[in-house]
Amino acid sequence: MIALLTDFGLADPYVGAMKGVIAGIAPGMPVIDVTHGVPPQDVRVGALFLDAAWPWFPPGTVFVCVVDPGVGTRRRPIVVSAADRLFVGPDNGLLSLLPDPIFRRIDVAGPLPSRTFHGRDLFSPIAARLATGALAFVDVGPLVDDAVRIDIPAPRAETDGWSGEVLYVDGFGNAITNLAGTDSGSVEVSGERLPVVTAYGDAPPGGLVALTGSTNRLEVAQRDGSAAATLGLRPGATVRLRA
Amino acid sequence: MIALLTDFGLADPYVGAMKGVIAGIAPGMPVIDVTHGVPPQDVRVGALFLDAAWPWFPPGTVFVCVVDPGVGTRRRPIVVSAADRLFVGPDNGLLSLLPDPIFRRIDVAGPLPSRTFHGRDLFSPIAARLATGALAFVDVGPLVDDAVRIDIPAPRAETDGWSGEVLYVDGFGNAITNLAGTDSGSVEVSGERLPVVTAYGDAPPGGLVALTGSTNRLEVAQRDGSAAATLGLRPGATVRLRA
Amino acid sequence: MIALLTDFGLADPYVGAMKGVIAGIAPGMPVIDVTHGVPPQDVRVGALFLDAAWPWFPPGTVFVCVVDPGVGTRRRPIVVSAADRLFVGPDNGLLSLLPDPIFRRIDVAGPLPSRTFHGRDLFSPIAARLATGALAFVDVGPLVDDAVRIDIPAPRAETDGWSGEVLYVDGFGNAITNLAGTDSGSVEVSGERLPVVTAYGDAPPGGLVALTGSTNRLEVAQRDGSAAATLGLRPGATVRLRA
Repeated sequence: MIALLTDFGLADPYVGAMKGVIAGIAPGMPVIDVTHGVPPQDVRVGALFLDAAWPWFPPGTVFVCVVDPGVGTRRRPIVVSAADRLFVGPDNGLLSLLPDPIFRRIDVAGPLPSRTFHGRDLFSPIAARLATGALAFVDVGPLVDDAVRIDIPAPRAETDGWSGEVLYVDGFGNAITNLAGTDSGSVEVSGERLPVVTAYGDAPPGGLVALTGSTNRLEVAQRDGSAAATLGLRPGATVRLRA
Repeated sequence: MIALLTDFGLADPYVGAMKGVIAGIAPGMPVIDVTHGVPPQDVRVGALFLDAAWPWFPPGTVFVCVVDPGVGTRRRPIVVSAADRLFVGPDNGLLSLLPDPIFRRIDVAGPLPSRTFHGRDLFSPIAARLATGALAFVDVGPLVDDAVRIDIPAPRAETDGWSGEVLYVDGFGNAITNLAGTDSGSVEVSGERLPVVTAYGDAPPGGLVALTGSTNRLEVAQRDGSAAATLGLRPGATVRLRA
Repeated sequence: MIALLTDFGLADPYVGAMKGVIAGIAPGMPVIDVTHGVPPQDVRVGALFLDAAWPWFPPGTVFVCVVDPGVGTRRRPIVVSAADRLFVGPDNGLLSLLPDPIFRRIDVAGPLPSRTFHGRDLFSPIAARLATGALAFVDVGPLVDDAVRIDIPAPRAETDGWSGEVLYVDGFGNAITNLAGTDSGSVEVSGERLPVVTAYGDAPPGGLVALTGSTNRLEVAQRDGSAAATLGLRPGATVRLRA
């Protein structure tokens, strides 16, 4: 099975072209969209979305991950083996949050791909060949020991709790933070103090709360509303957890 | 076959995670998106979208339907059998427009799911097991005879026709009403009187018309434009049909 | 395999209904979305998106293409055979950029479809029957020799280069033009002179450039930004290429 994660959006025919290429190389191979809604060229959010999604896909899944502002430059194309799954994409940090990763640089014979659309011309064909077994991970190319890493800021311990920040805002307006999930205490954000609850529906209508979201991170939410809009939250905004 | 209808949108990796879970339980099972564009937490529009779509899917389809502001509270998870299809989701009215429904509360052994993402942790696994035949409808749990219902307002008879209202606005700006489709007469809406026609192209360029849409409901449309934007139409706006 | 290209968007259940119909006629047939993000009723952009995508799908693919403001009027429904692929849709120019096309009018027995949703009621069933082999292209209906054509404006030669125009803007804000791709020279657009480069990453941060995009057309792009927003570019805007 192949799973796709990109910042291409769905308005243009770019994702469709990738799927056409895969279908030509691996007829009948199931292809699943993780999302194509990573904010354009936002490698960090792409890495976080992948982090939230990959554990839910079965072992053996081959992921094609493309958030690639450096396409056509000297950044390396890589395949990562991690957690019994394979991940194909650019060496720019997008694939650097995976656990115990082994990196290989893509170095296989083939026509020189375009310099603007490696998702279609390089990563999808490689993924299709990996998924069918026509190409083995060990034959992708040489091992890489200096892959580019991105760092997710860690929460800082304070005398009475933790100080963290908003990592991204989801489509419901929930602000997902770098604080670990918990089921008690309270948070301070945008000058407000909010209770930590265990379900969205525990908030009164319109109420603002914090809770452990589906990725085990603490998030700030509003019942029947957008917490991010109401509180003016963007990535980087400070969120403090009090015991 | 499994079909998905949610209010998750496609920007986040939530739908992808659901599909990953299904693929792990039911490898190779076709999964089709009905839509993930239900307005956030709008159970009524979700029910109407399902009403518009399910008849076009073959008997035997298992639908996963998630518009679920009460996730994690005491609202019941249910499976509905109707029209030779199965529908998995929350007991909040979302599944209450189906014809001759039989409701069962989900009560099967398994780890306690998260309290924030039953689409991924409860409804998708149940649907995958129903679709493969590993779980039978009669074994889902006890029958429910007091399922939550939502009501779609009925049109009111008037001396010279019917008075109805806008139910929702689609992506073309067409305003879909609760009035039954017809091919004659005229409608009054926002102080305008519009002819009832039988095809969008029957209107002159820019012209406003009413016609029977693809769900057999009367809708207000504008050729080469958005009727909803031009006329300021929102759900609840009055539309009168005159003979 | 069946591939879908429409202007339906993904907010409504319209695409889902089409897929349900196909699944009922051709169970297990792979269905791939090219895109559903053609601007509403924009036949020209639909034809350009199809032009950008179809070569990447394998021979034998059956495309359902629906950008159809004239649905229900006298415009003809057609099937086009071109490049070992089939294309089903309205005769309004949407399918007129295909190479060496053979056109047939759809004229097969069957219930009269709705006058508002031929994508679901006519084009999808025909495509499903073509894809399974239940219907052969020669049996679709009579040949058509006067299919509607749309013209993409050609660049004009000037003393020191070419004058072209923006055809559409993609989701990254890149402005795709009717100028043929090149790897040297410069372009004049919105009073600016931009270098022609060969990769997005060749631009400095925030820099505006022109380059050959993934469809072999010259496009105007901005690193880490939207060229269309920065330069105020819309379809029809003049872009001059200088040697």
